[in-house]
Amino acid sequence: MTDPNELSALEAAQRIADGRLTSEALIHTCLERIYAREDIIGAWAHLDADHAVAEAKQCDSEPARGPLHGVPVGIKDIIDTVDMPTAQGSPIYAGNQPAADAACVALLREAGAIILGKTVTTEFAAMTPGKTRNPHNPDHSPGGSSSGSAAAIADFMVPLALGSQTIGSTIRPSTYCGVVGFKSSYGSFSLAGMKPQAPSMDALGLMARSVDDIVLLRAPLLGVAQLPDAGPDPVSQPPRIGVSRSPHWNKAEPEMVRAMEAAVQALEDSGAALEEIVLEPEFADVLDAQWTILMFECSRGLRYELNNHADALSEPLRNLLEQGRTCPYDDYLAALDLAARCRALIAPIFDRVDVLLTPSAAGPAPLFGAPTDLLFQRLWTVLHLPSITLPAYVSATGLPVGIQLVGGLGSDSNLLSIARWVEERVCPATPI
Amino acid sequence: MTDPNELSALEAAQRIADGRLTSEALIHTCLERIYAREDIIGAWAHLDADHAVAEAKQCDSEPARGPLHGVPVGIKDIIDTVDMPTAQGSPIYAGNQPAADAACVALLREAGAIILGKTVTTEFAAMTPGKTRNPHNPDHSPGGSSSGSAAAIADFMVPLALGSQTIGSTIRPSTYCGVVGFKSSYGSFSLAGMKPQAPSMDALGLMARSVDDIVLLRAPLLGVAQLPDAGPDPVSQPPRIGVSRSPHWNKAEPEMVRAMEAAVQALEDSGAALEEIVLEPEFADVLDAQWTILMFECSRGLRYELNNHADALSEPLRNLLEQGRTCPYDDYLAALDLAARCRALIAPIFDRVDVLLTPSAAGPAPLFGAPTDLLFQRLWTVLHLPSITLPAYVSATGLPVGIQLVGGLGSDSNLLSIARWVEERVCPATPI
Repeated sequence: MTDPNELSALEAAQRIADGRLTSEALIHTCLERIYAREDIIGAWAHLDADHAVAEAKQCDSEPARGPLHGVPVGIKDIIDTVDMPTAQGSPIYAGNQPAADAACVALLREAGAIILGKTVTTEFAAMTPGKTRNPHNPDHSPGGSSSGSAAAIADFMVPLALGSQTIGSTIRPSTYCGVVGFKSSYGSFSLAGMKPQAPSMDALGLMARSVDDIVLLRAPLLGVAQLPDAGPDPVSQPPRIGVSRSPHWNKAEPEMVRAMEAAVQALEDSGAALEEIVLEPEFADVLDAQWTILMFECSRGLRYELNNHADALSEPLRNLLEQGRTCPYDDYLAALDLAARCRALIAPIFDRVDVLLTPSAAGPAPLFGAPTDLLFQRLWTVLHLPSITLPAYVSATGLPVGIQLVGGLGSDSNLLSIARWVEERVCPATPI
Repeated sequence: MTDPNELSALEAAQRIADGRLTSEALIHTCLERIYAREDIIGAWAHLDADHAVAEAKQCDSEPARGPLHGVPVGIKDIIDTVDMPTAQGSPIYAGNQPAADAACVALLREAGAIILGKTVTTEFAAMTPGKTRNPHNPDHSPGGSSSGSAAAIADFMVPLALGSQTIGSTIRPSTYCGVVGFKSSYGSFSLAGMKPQAPSMDALGLMARSVDDIVLLRAPLLGVAQLPDAGPDPVSQPPRIGVSRSPHWNKAEPEMVRAMEAAVQALEDSGAALEEIVLEPEFADVLDAQWTILMFECSRGLRYELNNHADALSEPLRNLLEQGRTCPYDDYLAALDLAARCRALIAPIFDRVDVLLTPSAAGPAPLFGAPTDLLFQRLWTVLHLPSITLPAYVSATGLPVGIQLVGGLGSDSNLLSIARWVEERVCPATPI
């Protein structure tokens, strides 16, 4: 029998609603898994077991508040929580207690979720890693910046978690850890109470072990009483899929090359209409523009920290912020302009295809401490498009290899429908 | 001789830089003005005179840090300050002490500014007024939501202040109080550390007693080491001005009708090329769409407060948030879509004209407690366009009447150049 902590969030929520499982029992098995594995994985920045159990008991004594009643969620530690510190992965904010919940946390609690704890983030969701290791092999990186959220889900410590993405901070750790990671269309969710990084690109990230669980997590976060459709419909016919190996295909590692070929074959065999999409040269240039935007906006947004706590910043982040401080304003404006042009350029492609299929990363997770991939997630973030990574295959050394689907702006529901269709046609247990 | 608190920020900064004035003397005259008038005006939510004087002394003992060295600024109380509480105009946040400065505050301090205190905001920058009265006549409204910032500047308590605008929260109080208020192009400034209201429209607001002072305040807030131009150039030839009486001209009061006619005449006499601009019917519809966006995004962003502190919310705000909670998602998406279409529709107009001239409000400030104008500022906010209000004339009863200039997206520098040209051609002391 499956331990409750290994259930999908949807199954757990249904069992709690039916009275076949208590939230308390579910939380206990999650906590047991954490006690057994946290020394190795290091997914949590803050965990208060007694508080979580008390909330679970409270849930068990009440009528269901919403679709997540009694289900635990992990929250990236750049997102404010009124009952837990929010430390931003930085000593500057060690023990910092926000005065309110972030909007996303309030919405999850409204839906009945239990906030299990705060998950490890890299320093201010930037490049300096935290303590988290890859659950598939602790010698390897979990990816960042939403490291703890991805690792906790992969390791069955919690079924759902929130991250964020400005460059690749949800898709990258999700693919490295072998979980489903979803970055919505720009502007879909409220980011109130979340530390900004580069506000013209920042997005909330949703992580789970299946597309259905992403759908379950997404609905309350939108903050709507009733969605136009309760969830994405099953696809009525095989989708039209554009295969975009991205401007950086030459950087793809052999595992990713084989994963893309295997996925293309599997989807074609299932009747999808595939079309090769080659992007214009602007789409390679926009990655430099994205870095300029990041550097400028991040330096402006973290100016208090830079001017008052420079010694408590890691050297790479301090350097980034200092570069942003001296970035010529015209360069920033030109970068914004190129990003806007590329958003307009990509839009018509989605008249021809329903989604793009593209690598989630250059390959499987590198060793802990080695540089992680910055190329394959970020184009879609600067383009404001929704994207999702699915664990698709496994490397010879047992590390997950993910594929990414990208939708047109605002097509998030449709992207999730198609992702569910694709999820049934790839094999996370198949070595490639 | 002019008391230092009556100097422009630019003149005060120059005198401090030259050694003709100390920051301490300037702060003392501002504080004296506040002591004399605050009981009537009620502009301040938090003021710590000793702290401000200590900061001024520190400035006086140091080499100049930047263009605002030693100059006091008032900060709307929805913007975080690390050394002063930030109460959001709500009892929920009474005494709340943020862990960091908002990005805009950090940038002002970097430029040498002294944060004199926190200015009164309506409750969460929404509709429920604070204690502030109109300095020109305390029986009248100062306008909201940036009430304290506008009143403090008008009353010579401080030369510069920050506000915010989602509907009309900077332009409205500025015109009612007879000061210059500037709302930049959407996305121009970092809003990190500022309570969001409706993030797809929120903007920082800048307030002062002259266009030159707005220019002085704007440069450090952009967060750039060097602007491409140190400030806006003087206009080389009379501008092309589109006269847009707005979709709500029939709601304009006699004073505003006369103010617009007087301004049109004065600008025509100075050689400006004027053209009547009549907006398509979509631009009236988009005001309803804006309200839907506000209601939905505000309800989502303030969900923690709504779910945990409903009793501490004013009834009008609680009703707005409850309406937003049940707003159908399709209505919200349709509203966003109409806003995007109107942004595209208005863009080509700025190929023909440099700026639009339009009323700042229906008329002068109404009585305190009466409804204030919601019509004449908000179109430009939902369109993401930069706008500035100038005190242009005065009513028979001594209340300021403002005119508004609106620029194309991203044309902020040019708008400020033209505003300076227009400022020299209207007469805030002339009764109309």
